[in-house]
Amino acid sequence: MTVSGWIVALFLVTLTGVEQVLLSEWGSETERNCSAVPPFLPPTAVNTSLRLQELRADMTAHNITAYIIPGTDAHMSEYIAARDARLAWMSGFTGSAGTAVVTQDRAVLWTDSRYWVQAARQMDCNWEMERDGYDEHDPVTKGNTTSNSNTGSLFVNTDTFAAYSASLSPAKRILKSVLDNLVDKIWTERPPVRADNLTRLPDSFIGRTWQMKVEQIRGQMLENIYQPSALLLSALDETAWLFNMRGNDIPFNPFFFSYTLLTLDQIWLFVHTERVTPELQEYLKASCNASLCVQLLDYNLVHAHLQMYLEGADVRVWVGTKYTNQALYELLTPEVRLDGTPQTRPFLVFSRDSHNRLLCNSDPKIRDAVAVMQLLHRLESSVPEGSETEVTAAKFVDEYRSMQRYSRGPSFETISASGPNAALAHYSPSKETARKLSVDEMYLLDSGGQYLDGTTDITRTVHWGTPTAFQKEAFTRVLMGNIEISRTKFPTWSRGVNIEMLGRRALWEVGLNYGHGTGHGVGNYFGVHEWPVGFQSDNIPFLEGMFTSIEPGYYKENEFGIRIEDVAVTVPAQTTYGSSYLTFETVSLVPYDRKLINTSMLSPEQLQWLNTYYQTIRAKMGPALMGQGLTEVHDWMIKNTEPFLTAGAPVLLTSVDACLQNFTLLKRDWNVK
Amino acid sequence: MTVSGWIVALFLVTLTGVEQVLLSEWGSETERNCSAVPPFLPPTAVNTSLRLQELRADMTAHNITAYIIPGTDAHMSEYIAARDARLAWMSGFTGSAGTAVVTQDRAVLWTDSRYWVQAARQMDCNWEMERDGYDEHDPVTKGNTTSNSNTGSLFVNTDTFAAYSASLSPAKRILKSVLDNLVDKIWTERPPVRADNLTRLPDSFIGRTWQMKVEQIRGQMLENIYQPSALLLSALDETAWLFNMRGNDIPFNPFFFSYTLLTLDQIWLFVHTERVTPELQEYLKASCNASLCVQLLDYNLVHAHLQMYLEGADVRVWVGTKYTNQALYELLTPEVRLDGTPQTRPFLVFSRDSHNRLLCNSDPKIRDAVAVMQLLHRLESSVPEGSETEVTAAKFVDEYRSMQRYSRGPSFETISASGPNAALAHYSPSKETARKLSVDEMYLLDSGGQYLDGTTDITRTVHWGTPTAFQKEAFTRVLMGNIEISRTKFPTWSRGVNIEMLGRRALWEVGLNYGHGTGHGVGNYFGVHEWPVGFQSDNIPFLEGMFTSIEPGYYKENEFGIRIEDVAVTVPAQTTYGSSYLTFETVSLVPYDRKLINTSMLSPEQLQWLNTYYQTIRAKMGPALMGQGLTEVHDWMIKNTEPFLTAGAPVLLTSVDACLQNFTLLKRDWNVK
Repeated sequence: MTVSGWIVALFLVTLTGVEQVLLSEWGSETERNCSAVPPFLPPTAVNTSLRLQELRADMTAHNITAYIIPGTDAHMSEYIAARDARLAWMSGFTGSAGTAVVTQDRAVLWTDSRYWVQAARQMDCNWEMERDGYDEHDPVTKGNTTSNSNTGSLFVNTDTFAAYSASLSPAKRILKSVLDNLVDKIWTERPPVRADNLTRLPDSFIGRTWQMKVEQIRGQMLENIYQPSALLLSALDETAWLFNMRGNDIPFNPFFFSYTLLTLDQIWLFVHTERVTPELQEYLKASCNASLCVQLLDYNLVHAHLQMYLEGADVRVWVGTKYTNQALYELLTPEVRLDGTPQTRPFLVFSRDSHNRLLCNSDPKIRDAVAVMQLLHRLESSVPEGSETEVTAAKFVDEYRSMQRYSRGPSFETISASGPNAALAHYSPSKETARKLSVDEMYLLDSGGQYLDGTTDITRTVHWGTPTAFQKEAFTRVLMGNIEISRTKFPTWSRGVNIEMLGRRALWEVGLNYGHGTGHGVGNYFGVHEWPVGFQSDNIPFLEGMFTSIEPGYYKENEFGIRIEDVAVTVPAQTTYGSSYLTFETVSLVPYDRKLINTSMLSPEQLQWLNTYYQTIRAKMGPALMGQGLTEVHDWMIKNTEPFLTAGAPVLLTSVDACLQNFTLLKRDWNVK
Repeated sequence: MTVSGWIVALFLVTLTGVEQVLLSEWGSETERNCSAVPPFLPPTAVNTSLRLQELRADMTAHNITAYIIPGTDAHMSEYIAARDARLAWMSGFTGSAGTAVVTQDRAVLWTDSRYWVQAARQMDCNWEMERDGYDEHDPVTKGNTTSNSNTGSLFVNTDTFAAYSASLSPAKRILKSVLDNLVDKIWTERPPVRADNLTRLPDSFIGRTWQMKVEQIRGQMLENIYQPSALLLSALDETAWLFNMRGNDIPFNPFFFSYTLLTLDQIWLFVHTERVTPELQEYLKASCNASLCVQLLDYNLVHAHLQMYLEGADVRVWVGTKYTNQALYELLTPEVRLDGTPQTRPFLVFSRDSHNRLLCNSDPKIRDAVAVMQLLHRLESSVPEGSETEVTAAKFVDEYRSMQRYSRGPSFETISASGPNAALAHYSPSKETARKLSVDEMYLLDSGGQYLDGTTDITRTVHWGTPTAFQKEAFTRVLMGNIEISRTKFPTWSRGVNIEMLGRRALWEVGLNYGHGTGHGVGNYFGVHEWPVGFQSDNIPFLEGMFTSIEPGYYKENEFGIRIEDVAVTVPAQTTYGSSYLTFETVSLVPYDRKLINTSMLSPEQLQWLNTYYQTIRAKMGPALMGQGLTEVHDWMIKNTEPFLTAGAPVLLTSVDACLQNFTLLKRDWNVK
């Protein structure tokens, strides 16, 4: 895949606050003005009159007074396929976060401040935009002006549905779900499911066979005090992980549309069966003699099949509610009370929180198991060869150099679609809005790729000209944050959310901060944002062998953005007195822009970490690059990994050891006693 | 009150793992041996045969097959009155954490590792002890061997009740609640409610009148989307805070047994009315002309009155479930489903989590409001005069000196009840178990007191003889943790749980850690552990003016314990670029034991903070101590607050500036160019 597209995908997720700013440079003439007479619409706005007219007609036919259109798909995927971009098709708005509510007389989009400008460029005047700080429940509480509202129930999870219902209940409004999606009915040119076949991971990249994973999950089912008779996997990465299979249904995410229903002696895999090759069928049927028989059913049969299964005797289905859509969830919990908390049937196995209290909540158990196994698997398959390490770095350094080489050259247009301009490219990749980079600005490149032995996600920020003192200070403080997290030692089982402030502290010291998370799990030819590992409050504690990004940043409105993102793996840490401590080993091997580092601000420990890291880059990348005959890249890498200790006075001045050394030398030279 | 008693209270709450260790020195002859023939019982064991016999008879009469005896009271108080120590009376075990289950043929106590030795000293062989890691649900899941179990429902909150029920449901066991407590029925010598009158805070210590607080709460009720018609306050500190009243029903906690039911136009205060003086009645009736009329009802009428209120039309009661006992909660949610999640009635206003999702959970809203108002109030009343600061420090330095003075003197017995030996004193304050301190050990004193303008909580660790290198290193790393938290700058609204690792990092660096929290809110003539402020995951974000303890520690099994605890208040922090940042101002002014500090381990920033702190102690304490004529204490304070920078080489060597200074001097002296 191209790097630039990938950049866009990542950029919009990890960066906040900047796109809007960059766009505002184009001024209001690129944004709609609905109060003008006649209303002004930019060329980027989409005419939604007909669509809304058709939707409203259907709503009347279904006796629906308000229709909610969420931005996600039936699996609550982070990234969605083109065929699932219903919100974008109905409203014109293509941002990654938003919810729409349509009534007979109003059409309202809720989104957060990152997307206000984008929405004003893409929506026509049929649509109102709620500029409020984005709240997933606003759409219902504020948008619903009638006594009834409905939603395409495939497209919200049950927690959201319950919350919406709760928001409605005081007003005596009722939220119902409708199985056939009204948008799909009028979306005549809706993109089809991709025709390409599903694939399986080569054995050399598999840590556990799908049969081993199935047995492990069945073991967990037997241990569960609720004695579930079945487990339903709804998230696309769960099924892809379980069967070591991959697809390409969602851009830059190697997943395929699927569900899995797993009992103690049966396995149903719901996919678009026409895409399962004879070889794959054999792969899935290989163990049918050992009660490990995968029965293939069409993707669209999951609802009917689950319903049928639930009619059996003493069935108890284990679900996590976070990724289970309301349509399936309602099969387990048909009645929803006025206050929105679902009525439970005994065969529904609820999740439990840390206090073992029953909640309607996403079940961490299975997801944790999945994640840990994923990560062990990942560790097994990639680290011994250190393959990912080299691949990542080699790839990236190459791209990095190319970027440098071509940034002022003919293919500038392509490159300008990366870094901060990814936003523009994404908002409206048209000549009107593209702009050239100057050589005198900060340039942020968030880059990654999918490789069989690893998914990568690396960000570097560079400056082509002369950075200001403030730019250097900000960059150095972001780097200090990255280093402080990377070098810290912590007990196994520590939670990332309780460590991540180390990434912000150097910024806080002078009143700076950043508005996004500090890191996320990274998959193995898998999701680049792999839950549940990371530094957020809903992430699990760190165990050995987990891969996470470390990505502090700083974003100065209207001026520049800085992010330094590395991928690291948790490894055992040696300590004087303790055992079972961890630290991070950075596996992305790319030097930072020296020009932006004020080494006099670094502590001796930070400086030492930086130099050790650069030694590692040389040791691992040197042979790899030369092996690929990338002499120019090699020289560039060597030049940019010069140790800092010998690089000048400022460093010496902050280094106690160095100071004392000189001190001693001096005393010796002058025979000081 | 005496300091020693107070120490015991704090000690058992904040310190983990140490008591058991200290006790083990006394060997097994002080612990029961039920496998010996005949069984051996230490003099500290309590004979519970008769009590169990009577309880079991009552259980049969009530058709109860298993009876749960929790350790708390009807208000889920952290500390309980003697009359509420039912678990201790039934089992003999007086530890602060435990749950008992009694069936016709078994009596089992669950407690955590801190109390295993204590339980083996206090329980006779009628009781089994579960040594498992303590889990609040073990008692039911493991203890219940029958098809029915019950609990004194006044004495668990609804979350615990739901969790117990959930643990039982797979085994088809049913948890019921019984209103009349079976233990009380047989506890003939149960201590009565204290006879002393309730008091009110003097106006000079009140930030807001109770009338203002009532109006504020009613404002919140009107804003609540559920439009509650009433608010029920169950926690003792909620009612004490609301009316600016205090009592002495629980040792060292100025609270009184009470409930408050507050509607938009009525106020019912449930107390032991005979303890309300005519003056207090006037105080509570003062605003009856302004729909602020406090109606006094007897404490024991709360259940009946709430039931009556609920029979009214369209009533919706706002409760937080954390402090509402099951007996009252059941009035709102009479039915409990098999899975333990309570059936809700529309008039129950549920709490909501950060995602606005409805949960059966403690409601943060009202508690937050209460806490923030408390803290604003506290700030108003104490900080301007800086009264607490001086009172705290003067008091403590005095106690501290006394301790030094008398530690080898005649009143040793008293003193030996403090520090680590608090545990012993508490377990069995008898000659058999008391021991003398040696001059060659670490001595931990966790001390505090209640003052009209502040509650204090300060811990210092000292060594009378020569500390080992490891003791110095451990103490210094604990101090580094205390300093790193105290000096850090963070954005307003940061959560304590996300910065508390700074208190552990210096220990983690060498594989050391501590097993307790890093700090808790501190009340104002109120609870010493004042929720919701602090560094735990269930604490609220920091705003300006919140008082919290900062108390990292380290505990070496069988050897020593270290804790350095200060009280700090959040104050605005000056930063170069940002606004709305906070830092901590330490208001407890007591020097640390110099002998235990290895200054060469401190960073220049830590050393600077330490010296600034010592300057503050001198500036504030000097005049205060001299003013009280405490010359000896004053001299001691001066001697122990000598600045460290001038104290010796190790400091210079770690100080870049100092090094460079010498460097420069040297060059000058030898005319180095």
